[in-house]
Amino acid sequence: MLLPFNVEARDPGSRARAGTLLTGHGAVLTPVFMTVGTRATVTGLDPVDLATLAAPVVLANTYHLMLRPGAEAFRRVGGIHRFMGYSGPVLTDSGGYQIFSLAADRTVNERGALFRSYVDQRLELLTPERSIEIQTAIGSDIMMVLDECIDSTSGAEATRAAMERTHRWALRCLSARSNPAQALFAIVQGGLVPELRRHSAEFLTAHPFDGFAIGGLAVGDTRAQREDVTRASAELLPDDRPRYLMGVGTPPDLLHAMLAGVDMFDCVLPTHLAWQGTAFTSTGRVKVTRGPSATADVPLDAACGCATCQRFSRAYLNHLFKCSEPLGPRLLSLHNLHHYYALMREAREAIVAGAFAAYARAKLDAIDRHEHSGRRLGDAPRPAQPS
Amino acid sequence: MLLPFNVEARDPGSRARAGTLLTGHGAVLTPVFMTVGTRATVTGLDPVDLATLAAPVVLANTYHLMLRPGAEAFRRVGGIHRFMGYSGPVLTDSGGYQIFSLAADRTVNERGALFRSYVDQRLELLTPERSIEIQTAIGSDIMMVLDECIDSTSGAEATRAAMERTHRWALRCLSARSNPAQALFAIVQGGLVPELRRHSAEFLTAHPFDGFAIGGLAVGDTRAQREDVTRASAELLPDDRPRYLMGVGTPPDLLHAMLAGVDMFDCVLPTHLAWQGTAFTSTGRVKVTRGPSATADVPLDAACGCATCQRFSRAYLNHLFKCSEPLGPRLLSLHNLHHYYALMREAREAIVAGAFAAYARAKLDAIDRHEHSGRRLGDAPRPAQPS
Repeated sequence: MLLPFNVEARDPGSRARAGTLLTGHGAVLTPVFMTVGTRATVTGLDPVDLATLAAPVVLANTYHLMLRPGAEAFRRVGGIHRFMGYSGPVLTDSGGYQIFSLAADRTVNERGALFRSYVDQRLELLTPERSIEIQTAIGSDIMMVLDECIDSTSGAEATRAAMERTHRWALRCLSARSNPAQALFAIVQGGLVPELRRHSAEFLTAHPFDGFAIGGLAVGDTRAQREDVTRASAELLPDDRPRYLMGVGTPPDLLHAMLAGVDMFDCVLPTHLAWQGTAFTSTGRVKVTRGPSATADVPLDAACGCATCQRFSRAYLNHLFKCSEPLGPRLLSLHNLHHYYALMREAREAIVAGAFAAYARAKLDAIDRHEHSGRRLGDAPRPAQPS
Repeated sequence: MLLPFNVEARDPGSRARAGTLLTGHGAVLTPVFMTVGTRATVTGLDPVDLATLAAPVVLANTYHLMLRPGAEAFRRVGGIHRFMGYSGPVLTDSGGYQIFSLAADRTVNERGALFRSYVDQRLELLTPERSIEIQTAIGSDIMMVLDECIDSTSGAEATRAAMERTHRWALRCLSARSNPAQALFAIVQGGLVPELRRHSAEFLTAHPFDGFAIGGLAVGDTRAQREDVTRASAELLPDDRPRYLMGVGTPPDLLHAMLAGVDMFDCVLPTHLAWQGTAFTSTGRVKVTRGPSATADVPLDAACGCATCQRFSRAYLNHLFKCSEPLGPRLLSLHNLHHYYALMREAREAIVAGAFAAYARAKLDAIDRHEHSGRRLGDAPRPAQPS
């Protein structure tokens, strides 16, 4: 049986839809932004904080967790939920992207990816079967297939070869699955080549995956390319299955992708930028240690209802960051995640009300206006270290 | 009018006593351990955490706060309570100890201490009057006089000269006080010389200070010297005023000082060691990344009722520290502070029950037993960086 997914509302002016995903650890309302908790922790936050924020899903990472603490640690306690004291839904990425972007001494062949562990310098082989075995031990509610990631601007031949290997690996992952309670999503690849994306979607959707991700974006592509591929790929994915745009993105990225019918997102930006002292606000991004209002006795964002804005001033946040006090990144992480979740809640309400196209346009215009004096939000450089 | 302080119970077997201190931000039950929040933040913790822990008092520091954010930031918002979003009692140290231990290009003369700011490299002059002016702006409930600190093992002449200057500065602080709602404590100095300590106590207690601190310890002295000076000094202090042992210490230090009649304590140890991965437990200190049980699926301290021990395993804490994830130090800070507060609560109950001498002896024996295979707890090296 496939992961229960029900589409409850559709926006008449776009392909946006509102749905519910029923995982083993609770229902998830879509569209959903998933918080990155790479190493079985959302950096600096406690599961109590996640509950307070009503964080819907935590996204952990197979590559990092296989190296530390290792699959055995999860087997012993019965999975990541008990390990990290968190009872909500968890999705695990397969490790494909991290092997592409982080691993040392990497060689990839048909069998899998050989790389050197950053923990003990031993060689590790991550095959599709081993990725599923580890994700099974981790006990995530949604597993991802191991894919071969390459730069989205690679040539057509390399892109096709990686895509075809991704397809073969996806089928090996499907065969390797042993726990039917854990959903498995496939990942559409094909770089920036429309025919390859079409072929990838057609191939993968012919198999009983619980959902379909759009992978290989936000790795060298422009915002316009990302939007084009997302729109085209989303159209090719079945209406009755959740669609997940991996590793994306800024608020405008999310709005564009929701317009295209994407249901699920994850990105390190809200937490990553928080640790660098940058806040998302209703009037654009704010570096808390800069600008004339950095020492003002006013909230970071007067329009924000988060615990940080309700209780602390710009001056205090500035002080914490100037002193390198860890409460600073913590308070900003709480704020940035609240900002993202509030955007997703508003977006879902607009979809249910049948007014999403107009809502998204107004929101995109407002963000552009706030950022128009400098670079545009969507073209901001991505964080240097992927999670 | 002096700060209201009422002694409610006395231990028949020792000089220990239980009291209540009535500050402008609430009643404080003594003996009390005050949490170090040097820069208007208890490292990594939110005021909500302090409330959950029932942290009785936060101790902030004039030296650090005068340099950043500066007195004006506190004047603008009306004090540290609003600045840091905390409504409980605050004590400010005067900066004397930090000038002694941290300041660059320091020269001390009768007027005050001249030193170079670590924020903007400008020369700053901290006089007794300026310390009180800044503490008034900070708006702490209890201010400390500016004292001249020297190494506790300095020669008798240098120790006497610093003590006499501390006395003159204490009277200048008393004259400079402008807000009667803020209590002012004097600091007994005199190093390890009994006659000097006696003289210092006699001199200072002849003036209307709200309380009396024992200063100049834990700066080069041994545990035995510290205990002797504490016991002798505490006996010289008036019965109707709170006694505060500054910068001390380990659980055995606290127990010995309570036996001697000390009411108030502060120390960076519980938070400082937490950031280094060391926990205080009912069976001794534990480095969470070491030892055969570091990866066990058991609580850090099965006898502990704190939020960390109730929800997380040794294996998870070990994982967080191995990954340098900031949730690790945060969870350990919550645990270590809980451990200290629980000790103080137990101690107070024992005093009220008239059974403190036996309680303290049993507790000291248990701690010695847990640590007997290695060095004794009380002789552990102090953290290198004073707060």
